Amino acid sequence: MEHTHAVIMAGGVGSRFWPRSRKSIPKQFLRLFEKETLIQASVGRITPLVPPERIWVVANQTHRHLLIQQLPDLPQENLLLEPIGRNTAPCIGLAALHVYERDPDAIMLILPSDHLISNPDNFCRLLRQTIDLVRENRQSLVTLGIQPTYPATGYGYIQRGTQIDRQHERAFRVRAFAEKPTLEVARQFFQSGEFLWNSGIFIWYAETILNYISELMPDLYAGLLEIRRSIKEKDCDRVTERVYQALRSQSIDYGVMESASQVLVVEGDFGWSDVGGWEETWKLSAKDDQGNAGTAERITKNSENNLIESDKLVVLIGVHDLVVVDTPDALLICNRSQSQEVKWVVEKLKHEKSEKYL
Amino acid sequence: MEHTHAVIMAGGVGSRFWPRSRKSIPKQFLRLFEKETLIQASVGRITPLVPPERIWVVANQTHRHLLIQQLPDLPQENLLLEPIGRNTAPCIGLAALHVYERDPDAIMLILPSDHLISNPDNFCRLLRQTIDLVRENRQSLVTLGIQPTYPATGYGYIQRGTQIDRQHERAFRVRAFAEKPTLEVARQFFQSGEFLWNSGIFIWYAETILNYISELMPDLYAGLLEIRRSIKEKDCDRVTERVYQALRSQSIDYGVMESASQVLVVEGDFGWSDVGGWEETWKLSAKDDQGNAGTAERITKNSENNLIESDKLVVLIGVHDLVVVDTPDALLICNRSQSQEVKWVVEKLKHEKSEKYL
Repeated sequence: MEHTHAVIMAGGVGSRFWPRSRKSIPKQFLRLFEKETLIQASVGRITPLVPPERIWVVANQTHRHLLIQQLPDLPQENLLLEPIGRNTAPCIGLAALHVYERDPDAIMLILPSDHLISNPDNFCRLLRQTIDLVRENRQSLVTLGIQPTYPATGYGYIQRGTQIDRQHERAFRVRAFAEKPTLEVARQFFQSGEFLWNSGIFIWYAETILNYISELMPDLYAGLLEIRRSIKEKDCDRVTERVYQALRSQSIDYGVMESASQVLVVEGDFGWSDVGGWEETWKLSAKDDQGNAGTAERITKNSENNLIESDKLVVLIGVHDLVVVDTPDALLICNRSQSQEVKWVVEKLKHEKSEKYL
Repeated sequence: MEHTHAVIMAGGVGSRFWPRSRKSIPKQFLRLFEKETLIQASVGRITPLVPPERIWVVANQTHRHLLIQQLPDLPQENLLLEPIGRNTAPCIGLAALHVYERDPDAIMLILPSDHLISNPDNFCRLLRQTIDLVRENRQSLVTLGIQPTYPATGYGYIQRGTQIDRQHERAFRVRAFAEKPTLEVARQFFQSGEFLWNSGIFIWYAETILNYISELMPDLYAGLLEIRRSIKEKDCDRVTERVYQALRSQSIDYGVMESASQVLVVEGDFGWSDVGGWEETWKLSAKDDQGNAGTAERITKNSENNLIESDKLVVLIGVHDLVVVDTPDALLICNRSQSQEVKWVVEKLKHEKSEKYL
């Protein structure tokens, strides 16, 4: 897979995993399943395709020590540190700049750091096919879409258009992007069979995305050029800081994908989930005979379908469908069906200036 | 209240408050309500009647440091330490021995260390009246009975007989003692109006109880005599240890009260509860508008009628009727209505030799 570079986007601050996720340790750095953290799994599953020297990570500079600790095999020059989060467009622009600088013929696989993929073999096979597709369509932007399994309201959608040709039977032109829908709309999407979940996984030439950014997001492009001039200079950090302060926060979907002329979607099926919160963590976890899951040592009686995260012995008696997340300074006990309310807690803590719990 | 001595029985190892109560810190040494521990409250409420130099505590020798820490005003010679728990008969016998040794005319108020009394003024008034009754009936054993408020199955009962005279309108001869009943029997007791809850509070002359022990429990009496001979000798601890090893475990109710010829019960109403477990702790605690109680700093949403004990911030979302008890090495989450199962947990931990959690 010559010229192929993987870019792992790790700038997120997911507040839905409070109290385990904090400003100091966001979701992607947590060990939610098994032995690896989500970012370690994200890097690990791509290594059959891309060697470490061509794997890049974009993250906030405050998490530099976590990156070095959790991903010791990556070269430090591949860690691209943002001074401030400005959503996916600046993140991808910055990565494209650096990747293009190293290899003007580079193809970028842009991958989230905090998703779960339960079938990595299928995933890698699909990526290989998609890389071939991108090689044949150098001016195209390609995204992966997931065949929906239920009318989800927590994901964005991509409406597929016509198949591009017989050779690539799972590749389609994109007809439209849609934001997270209401339940009613989600049901229409689901029944139509035309809508795919937006996975946030992209494949394209570094050169192509930079061209699109220059066309569709000229402010961002100007900022990137400024940073480019400072690469290899000792004031690069200061320039990057100044440029980022001035950038607008914008997603690549809104800033580029929805307006670009050549956008394709490849339909995939590889056990994808964005692990949106504790409820989904329970669903995706290995469970005992009573449906209980989680990292804690447990003794249970009359207790079913709970997710229990703790370093302690946890005893459950007569409780069901709970999420329990125990950390050194905060304890969450939440009905599984209301675990989206964790975001409310984080907002409340911000509002009350309870900084120490954030 | 000359010649009046209070004896606080603090040898219990209540396992129903796990994980806060442990072998190293039983229930009576816990701060379950407000600022005081249960034993501090037990001593505090008796001080209007009895000065510290006449307040005694009987406890296991492993808890000596807790007694000194929590009850710094009591003279150390009033701490009677048992090498091993042998139920209430040896405990009361040992105390009677020491109290009689100091004052042969002593009246003993024998009080549990781990009960709650919400109306201490009524309690002290009743004790004064009962002390007068004992003075007039020097050969009698007197116990306090509580007018039941519901058909409890968790308490022993005392069936009252005839009133002893017009002057003491709340004092009755005892017709029978009854063990903890089934629910059906408890309902019969409750409806009859003749049955009182057995509070485990006794008032009598030290001399009288020693006479009854000599008559009804000669083995125990022989052991007490042996200990008595060693009081003020330097081998007293070793003698006490040897005697206790040989003693049978027996309650004062079974060993003396049920067979003694002159037993009276005084009916009282002073907001008594034995605080039998977490469910009762919730009932007796101050609650917020949503019925939530406990020591933890809380943020709640859609959550009602929970008891939350923790040093941390605890966030509750969509949960109700839970007992949550968070300690440094173990976390209990229990449906309030099943909190009696905590005893099962402790048995299981014993069985599995998980000593560190006991």
